[in-house]
Amino acid sequence: MSSKRKSFSHLDAAGGARMVDVGAKPDSRRTAIAEGRLTCAPATIRLLRAQALPKGDVLTVAQIAGIQAAKSTSALIPLCHPLALTSVDVTFKVQRDSIGVRATVRTTGQTGVEMEALTAVAVAALALYDMCKAVDKGMTIGGVRVVKKTKAST
Amino acid sequence: MSSKRKSFSHLDAAGGARMVDVGAKPDSRRTAIAEGRLTCAPATIRLLRAQALPKGDVLTVAQIAGIQAAKSTSALIPLCHPLALTSVDVTFKVQRDSIGVRATVRTTGQTGVEMEALTAVAVAALALYDMCKAVDKGMTIGGVRVVKKTKAST
Amino acid sequence: MSSKRKSFSHLDAAGGARMVDVGAKPDSRRTAIAEGRLTCAPATIRLLRAQALPKGDVLTVAQIAGIQAAKSTSALIPLCHPLALTSVDVTFKVQRDSIGVRATVRTTGQTGVEMEALTAVAVAALALYDMCKAVDKGMTIGGVRVVKKTKAST
Amino acid sequence: MSSKRKSFSHLDAAGGARMVDVGAKPDSRRTAIAEGRLTCAPATIRLLRAQALPKGDVLTVAQIAGIQAAKSTSALIPLCHPLALTSVDVTFKVQRDSIGVRATVRTTGQTGVEMEALTAVAVAALALYDMCKAVDKGMTIGGVRVVKKTKAST
Amino acid sequence: MSSKRKSFSHLDAAGGARMVDVGAKPDSRRTAIAEGRLTCAPATIRLLRAQALPKGDVLTVAQIAGIQAAKSTSALIPLCHPLALTSVDVTFKVQRDSIGVRATVRTTGQTGVEMEALTAVAVAALALYDMCKAVDKGMTIGGVRVVKKTKAST
Amino acid sequence: MSSKRKSFSHLDAAGGARMVDVGAKPDSRRTAIAEGRLTCAPATIRLLRAQALPKGDVLTVAQIAGIQAAKSTSALIPLCHPLALTSVDVTFKVQRDSIGVRATVRTTGQTGVEMEALTAVAVAALALYDMCKAVDKGMTIGGVRVVKKTKAST
Repeated sequence: MSSKRKSFSHLDAAGGARMVDVGAKPDSRRTAIAEGRLTCAPATIRLLRAQALPKGDVLTVAQIAGIQAAKSTSALIPLCHPLALTSVDVTFKVQRDSIGVRATVRTTGQTGVEMEALTAVAVAALALYDMCKAVDKGMTIGGVRVVKKTKAST
Repeated sequence: MSSKRKSFSHLDAAGGARMVDVGAKPDSRRTAIAEGRLTCAPATIRLLRAQALPKGDVLTVAQIAGIQAAKSTSALIPLCHPLALTSVDVTFKVQRDSIGVRATVRTTGQTGVEMEALTAVAVAALALYDMCKAVDKGMTIGGVRVVKKTKAST
Repeated sequence: MSSKRKSFSHLDAAGGARMVDVGAKPDSRRTAIAEGRLTCAPATIRLLRAQALPKGDVLTVAQIAGIQAAKSTSALIPLCHPLALTSVDVTFKVQRDSIGVRATVRTTGQTGVEMEALTAVAVAALALYDMCKAVDKGMTIGGVRVVKKTKAST
Repeated sequence: MSSKRKSFSHLDAAGGARMVDVGAKPDSRRTAIAEGRLTCAPATIRLLRAQALPKGDVLTVAQIAGIQAAKSTSALIPLCHPLALTSVDVTFKVQRDSIGVRATVRTTGQTGVEMEALTAVAVAALALYDMCKAVDKGMTIGGVRVVKKTKAST
Repeated sequence: MSSKRKSFSHLDAAGGARMVDVGAKPDSRRTAIAEGRLTCAPATIRLLRAQALPKGDVLTVAQIAGIQAAKSTSALIPLCHPLALTSVDVTFKVQRDSIGVRATVRTTGQTGVEMEALTAVAVAALALYDMCKAVDKGMTIGGVRVVKKTKAST
Repeated sequence: MSSKRKSFSHLDAAGGARMVDVGAKPDSRRTAIAEGRLTCAPATIRLLRAQALPKGDVLTVAQIAGIQAAKSTSALIPLCHPLALTSVDVTFKVQRDSIGVRATVRTTGQTGVEMEALTAVAVAALALYDMCKAVDKGMTIGGVRVVKKTKAST
């Protein structure tokens, strides 16, 4: 694609913000996978493994936060279209000094679901941050990005 | 504080999730500042400067997304307390290959507002991602962290 | 169905919570009817008939609460799919010492609407409770269950 | 249409409120355009042009408010059906003593989107009011009406 | 106040949107009253009186819509502060060719509640519009304005 | 209290619905405890113990649903006041053929929190229902009632 044709679809001819019209697009089966990471002190991970992970509650709380956030993406991101998600899956990978977050979102619709997957990851990471902040003041959320996006005709 | 006394305040004695009781804490004037960054291609920034930034709309949309998200933090983060925020400010710093996001949140209340500031940053960055994704598929949100937190008696 | 095949669809192989993928299911016309009951003192019903029911306001308020709750079911119940409901109907039957609540919900979609009907009943009953609690401290909500569920091809 | 056949579709046979069943209607491509106006002092418009309109922020904030409100119409208007909007566009016309607001909403669905367009206009005008109220105490929102409504088979 | 000192409090020094800091203001008991009007055909009013007003449902539905909207003002109007309203009252005056709407909102807090009162009026009028639109295509919402605002020390 | 003085506080003199004015009441520390129960087949409980309870996820999901619902009570129950809850705690008691749900809610404010506790119980039970409905079609939610309510001056 030439740079000439590149443009911000959320801006109209006059440069104003708008919610792009997707009404003419056919429905497709769409999947997006996003990832991110909460980086923390190794001591936080050790404490988490000792106190919180045996019952799994901390991860489940963050999982629910991510799933609920995916469903409310169009309320959070102003120019996102509302989409009836058919599946949201949020998983975690606890490592030495970080917790990896991965969200897989699916829908059958007229626009992609990468914003829903990214929102699920970001909010799940924020929920982890919230539950760990009493023991660790130096955490960072990063690496939030789309790792896969697919579209298939219905 | 000795590591012995460190524990996850969001877990009860049995390891279950809970919303911590803050009812006995006095009201304080509280501020939190959080930052983060959307990293993108330099060409995206150039296009943004040419097409979108003259009118400022893209940044204003992201700003509103961040402010609104700060106000709905307790709906997004399961164990966060509802707080009547007295001020939310979201600013941006457009650089060569990234847009820095900074949120300052204030309240008078019984708990801190770092989650509100972090949520504002994360959602403002997600909104920027949404508006730039048509021209850049390789963006990443990172460096989301608290940079300052203060508490003063009322 | 053998007990072997029975399983919790909201749990993945590792026992984690998830929002089941319904993307491969065909759209069907679906109906669910749920019922429940607010049990109260006969004096409360008499007062309601004398003061509140002539104008119908108390029941209308509860009806709207139930309809609005049905529409927000996927925001309330973490693993519920968002569904575009095509019809919600909430009715009441005032008896000697109770108010029966019945909700009928319809959609054309990939999952059933029993959770939407149950949520409408529960929240309509909670709204009734709220409006009667100044005169009756001993009320109970019960019998909240699905009474009918149908599915027809579109 | 004879007056006999005219009736309030949101009332059932007994006069109770209900969300009309639209499940049997075919999907159509639907558009609605609504307009309205915030009337204010000419000095407010002059101040707006001098201080706020160069960067466009005030109008963009109101635009986002209108777009977000359109998406949440079914949560605001009790008997409205949830609809997956495919496009929302809010524009303004700044005049000597008023700001005109115009919203165009589209969907493919079973009911019209005039309530979504009207809600976008009303909330965008309320947001303008909010941002101008520090300098003008005598503003009025008026002329909120549907100016066009179309339906086409898919 | 001289026109020099007049400025838009929702804009920062650089012209960017912000949620004004009200943290230093003392709590006051605040009231705001707003009014508005849905203008329709006299035949609509006659039909409403015959079919819908005997039971009062149409007005009660609009009343609830207005009350709920007042409570969610800070979610609808981007730069509004969240406020714990202590009272919301919405009343109607049915006339020959219009329905007048009046909302009274009270709080004890750091900012006024005129936006809450205006939002209640606008959304109650939108709900009336929704319920009457099947019988009247030419209605208009207008005259939405603040009629009284008071502040008293606690 | 004589029966003469008993009345529905949510109705005004004309019988219309309203949100009672609590602005003149002093702040008190308030607690409410509510309980309820999901009754199901013993086989469902056995399956739950075998498949779902080891990791605790099912109960944690329901707990989060209850906590989040408590925080959104004023959005669900039309005439409830918004309250900044200081604590929400939801616990479960798994028995032979039922799961007991108990919610404890606290605030410092002008109205009681029994509706918040009841809403937490009802929605937690609905979430349990949702997760068990694939294996049990005959469940009932009942016994939802307030078991304790206290008020203490601040």
